[in-house]
Amino acid sequence: MKKVAVIMGSDSDLPKVEKCIEELKAMGIPCEVHVYSAHRTPDDATQFAKDARGRGFGVIITAAGKAAHLGGVIAANTTLPVIGIPIKASALEGIDALLSTVQMPPGIPVASVAIDGAKNAAILAAEILAVSDEKLEKVLVERREKAKLEVLEKNKKVEEMFN
Amino acid sequence: MKKVAVIMGSDSDLPKVEKCIEELKAMGIPCEVHVYSAHRTPDDATQFAKDARGRGFGVIITAAGKAAHLGGVIAANTTLPVIGIPIKASALEGIDALLSTVQMPPGIPVASVAIDGAKNAAILAAEILAVSDEKLEKVLVERREKAKLEVLEKNKKVEEMFN
Amino acid sequence: MKKVAVIMGSDSDLPKVEKCIEELKAMGIPCEVHVYSAHRTPDDATQFAKDARGRGFGVIITAAGKAAHLGGVIAANTTLPVIGIPIKASALEGIDALLSTVQMPPGIPVASVAIDGAKNAAILAAEILAVSDEKLEKVLVERREKAKLEVLEKNKKVEEMFN
Amino acid sequence: MKKVAVIMGSDSDLPKVEKCIEELKAMGIPCEVHVYSAHRTPDDATQFAKDARGRGFGVIITAAGKAAHLGGVIAANTTLPVIGIPIKASALEGIDALLSTVQMPPGIPVASVAIDGAKNAAILAAEILAVSDEKLEKVLVERREKAKLEVLEKNKKVEEMFN
Amino acid sequence: MKKVAVIMGSDSDLPKVEKCIEELKAMGIPCEVHVYSAHRTPDDATQFAKDARGRGFGVIITAAGKAAHLGGVIAANTTLPVIGIPIKASALEGIDALLSTVQMPPGIPVASVAIDGAKNAAILAAEILAVSDEKLEKVLVERREKAKLEVLEKNKKVEEMFN
Amino acid sequence: MKKVAVIMGSDSDLPKVEKCIEELKAMGIPCEVHVYSAHRTPDDATQFAKDARGRGFGVIITAAGKAAHLGGVIAANTTLPVIGIPIKASALEGIDALLSTVQMPPGIPVASVAIDGAKNAAILAAEILAVSDEKLEKVLVERREKAKLEVLEKNKKVEEMFN
Amino acid sequence: MKKVAVIMGSDSDLPKVEKCIEELKAMGIPCEVHVYSAHRTPDDATQFAKDARGRGFGVIITAAGKAAHLGGVIAANTTLPVIGIPIKASALEGIDALLSTVQMPPGIPVASVAIDGAKNAAILAAEILAVSDEKLEKVLVERREKAKLEVLEKNKKVEEMFN
Amino acid sequence: MKKVAVIMGSDSDLPKVEKCIEELKAMGIPCEVHVYSAHRTPDDATQFAKDARGRGFGVIITAAGKAAHLGGVIAANTTLPVIGIPIKASALEGIDALLSTVQMPPGIPVASVAIDGAKNAAILAAEILAVSDEKLEKVLVERREKAKLEVLEKNKKVEEMFN
Repeated sequence: MKKVAVIMGSDSDLPKVEKCIEELKAMGIPCEVHVYSAHRTPDDATQFAKDARGRGFGVIITAAGKAAHLGGVIAANTTLPVIGIPIKASALEGIDALLSTVQMPPGIPVASVAIDGAKNAAILAAEILAVSDEKLEKVLVERREKAKLEVLEKNKKVEEMFN
Repeated sequence: MKKVAVIMGSDSDLPKVEKCIEELKAMGIPCEVHVYSAHRTPDDATQFAKDARGRGFGVIITAAGKAAHLGGVIAANTTLPVIGIPIKASALEGIDALLSTVQMPPGIPVASVAIDGAKNAAILAAEILAVSDEKLEKVLVERREKAKLEVLEKNKKVEEMFN
Repeated sequence: MKKVAVIMGSDSDLPKVEKCIEELKAMGIPCEVHVYSAHRTPDDATQFAKDARGRGFGVIITAAGKAAHLGGVIAANTTLPVIGIPIKASALEGIDALLSTVQMPPGIPVASVAIDGAKNAAILAAEILAVSDEKLEKVLVERREKAKLEVLEKNKKVEEMFN
Repeated sequence: MKKVAVIMGSDSDLPKVEKCIEELKAMGIPCEVHVYSAHRTPDDATQFAKDARGRGFGVIITAAGKAAHLGGVIAANTTLPVIGIPIKASALEGIDALLSTVQMPPGIPVASVAIDGAKNAAILAAEILAVSDEKLEKVLVERREKAKLEVLEKNKKVEEMFN
Repeated sequence: MKKVAVIMGSDSDLPKVEKCIEELKAMGIPCEVHVYSAHRTPDDATQFAKDARGRGFGVIITAAGKAAHLGGVIAANTTLPVIGIPIKASALEGIDALLSTVQMPPGIPVASVAIDGAKNAAILAAEILAVSDEKLEKVLVERREKAKLEVLEKNKKVEEMFN
Repeated sequence: MKKVAVIMGSDSDLPKVEKCIEELKAMGIPCEVHVYSAHRTPDDATQFAKDARGRGFGVIITAAGKAAHLGGVIAANTTLPVIGIPIKASALEGIDALLSTVQMPPGIPVASVAIDGAKNAAILAAEILAVSDEKLEKVLVERREKAKLEVLEKNKKVEEMFN
Repeated sequence: MKKVAVIMGSDSDLPKVEKCIEELKAMGIPCEVHVYSAHRTPDDATQFAKDARGRGFGVIITAAGKAAHLGGVIAANTTLPVIGIPIKASALEGIDALLSTVQMPPGIPVASVAIDGAKNAAILAAEILAVSDEKLEKVLVERREKAKLEVLEKNKKVEEMFN
Repeated sequence: MKKVAVIMGSDSDLPKVEKCIEELKAMGIPCEVHVYSAHRTPDDATQFAKDARGRGFGVIITAAGKAAHLGGVIAANTTLPVIGIPIKASALEGIDALLSTVQMPPGIPVASVAIDGAKNAAILAAEILAVSDEKLEKVLVERREKAKLEVLEKNKKVEEMFN
């Protein structure tokens, strides 16, 4: 199976990004995690992106806050699909990171998930790999089924409380 | 090659969505275009999503404005990757469509591109299919190279004007 | 009397939704409470909406955060009036849920109340049922009168403090 | 059948409000239209609200822009359900009218529809009256069916264009 | 001297409004404090506004959160200058109260101060009364002088710390 | 009668500010109009503010767009009440001018009216002067009565169209 | 004198960037203009930044719209001061470009001017070069004096119209 | 070496501004720190700006919250480059301070850094001084190198945790 890269712009994003890593591991998807800053280590970020396909990656997930350029910088240097997780940092509730991630100009897309949407970034990566991987697709279906049952379980509890 | 579906919530979105269709065709990607509203034809939208993988689709692109639920409704009924194009409609500059598309809760991701980012939706779909399609990957690389040369051409003209 | 359904997209919304349930019970309005997610249990949400009128409901209240599609998904499947409570979740102060709820395209309305406006959702539901229910209308008038007296009571205390 | 009142804060709102009036008339719902300003004719607005139930109204629709207080002023003086249409005026894309309409404090709800959502206000009013009016409910179902067929018709045209 | 009225929409606003009352008292301006809700006690709010000039008031200060209609409702019923303090309540950081207060349509102004700007509301009221009251104007000048000295005092301390 | 000063930051604001001047003249209030920029002519702006009370002004109205500092700069140099009109300039729909005007820190208030609210600035100035001017107060009452009749006239026309 | 570089992300930004170039030329500052996209020509943009100081540049001005990463990408590769002009593109009124430009994380600053603030970018560049260039400083002082006289001239005209 | 001035509008900004002072000191840049309010001590702020170049300053850094006029007031009175740090105060997440700082009208720029971007203000000041100071430029390069190594160090730790 192709690997998924998870690149965060700062190790302070780790507590949020961990949900992404856990979700990938829970689905049995091989992943590699790195801290590369678009601004403080631009060459490393760029080089990683240029090498990624050759090194067996299928998707790159990026996570960054504030003026979140990491997704764009990575996407500019690879034709692999790049997923951006806008991280809510100190001010502005993460709207800065969201717009910096999602409003990419024509030619170089970044697939944005929700602010702090680390878990969904992992699932989206899995969905991308599962386009040509029936086994992984089955994992996705099973996990959806499980999530559905969890909601219905909670529904039952709430029904017992109030109805 | 897997097909790409392009679903718009209203035919009034067509002038914007056309850029997506053109881009897909220019890359030689087979696509199917539909108008299904999450609210006025929920059963058709749902059924399309449920059948999509079986019918040979690899990616579904959705386009909707205002409270843009179409991406979420489609994504809830398939494990294929779903790309959402938030359409700028009358008021609020498209921020309503962007937030309705991108802020998906954990479990069901929608990959959001920029407001009116129809062309990038097509490119992202191509990148997703190209994960396991070397020929398409080459198309992507060529088009990037071409886009780069266009910028450098424009750079030359601007340099001649001012330098 | 027709019943009111209260559907929340996640049981994490319960602490806020409880004010709605309490208010309905305080007005003597029969209600049913459920957890159905527009994205994780779309079939259950849809089916509930389709059956609601036949099962004796007069109004459906929905509560959801982030890209809050629940109101729209329910409204797409019933002609009963649907009230949406946008829930303030982690980021963006609830503006995402508000816009996802209120900015419905023409044809399928959702009646939005304020962010976290659970109590008002209950009162609005009561007002809707009271259009054809004089007894309930009296309850509403009495509760308004009581609320007015509470304000005037507080006014008196503040007057005593400062005037 | 109970009547629906349509109150606009200024006659400059009429071009937008007309879609509401047309929709009500198309559904055969008797309505009365007025221009009452919350600020320039507060007594008339207040008096209308106080008398509305006694005069046979079942729902009051209000339309106002900027600091849109009309919905709140009407709702403060009746227990009828009040629907607010936030009107997009000169600046701020209508977000001022939306927040002034929807963010009502606990006790006095206003059911907000989308910015300039005049047609949906009419449909919501119809849904409210149809809770206890089977004939009107049938009208709603028929119109939904018609709207669905229109979408499917457009879908067919788009399919012919591209597929 | 004319009196200043301080009207808050809810006694929960009192902790913020107290800074206004203290400032008025510190300047020796007679004031009256009330809790009147634009929505729960509309008649009391209206009547207060209608009587205010005759009862010796020169300025009315209002404080309200969320869809803050109180300033507008008071202003609609008096030609006295009305100052609005938008109160930051639970969600949206007070932008809802600000827009509901400041975006008044032509004809009926409300003089808005900053979100939670209770102290400035008092100073603005004093400035208004001081237009025709030399003694009060002197108080204002003295307090400005004092504020200036406080800043310069703090400047000195900071200079000692760092320079 | 005290005079009203109308200061705009740029002559490009004149088309909007003219409504303010016209309204003042219609109410018989003597006024002086100037163009002083907080940034390009700071000394002139400051000096005007320092001299204003001595030169017989009772209120200063300022109008500025973008980072609208003019109101604050004037208010910092006078204890006269200062009214700020935030002007909607090229981008951001005037929200920059509104926040720059209204969010004044404690100590120095600016009374903000709506974005482009030139007419209301004039009325607010008149209300301030009318606190101690019964004749002007009568003018205000008459104009309100006239505005009310205009609304009711329009109401009649709309009623004839639709009812 | 050191040179100023003006880099725009797309030649569609030229109509706005021209004001910057004109202003630089009017001040006699040597400049070089280029079109380099952070995303479509990342290597060229990066290389330009790395070489800039050695090639005699003192300041780099960047202009970009939407998710405006250009300023950050340039700043990551030079220690020259980098000025960013956020360009208002199709949607969102330029707030996306502003936040993408100004909200840089600690370590790599970009000096942001206003949305579409091309002229100010040129003046800021001149101010930076003038820190160690007395002759240029005199040019700045003269141009400020001229701008001041223009305002006072306009003031005179407005005074003649209204006073 | 030219000195850097750090002016904060209120001593309550000190905890955030300290990062700026520390960074300047760490780079060996002489600085002077002051508290001058644009509104409460306008003459002191103005005078400081007028004297700054003559007193050996090369850059002025300002820090202010809410309607942050300090940068503009300083910039209006000097041709030195002025850097503005928008400070996040009580409400609105600092967007008010950002817009009041960055949206300067043509003629008088303020170089805005991120909300609470105190450290970057210091680095930007250093970059400006380093245009004509090779020794300081070396300091900047060294600190960048160090920052890069810190990121790579953190990368290594994260790699050890997950890969």
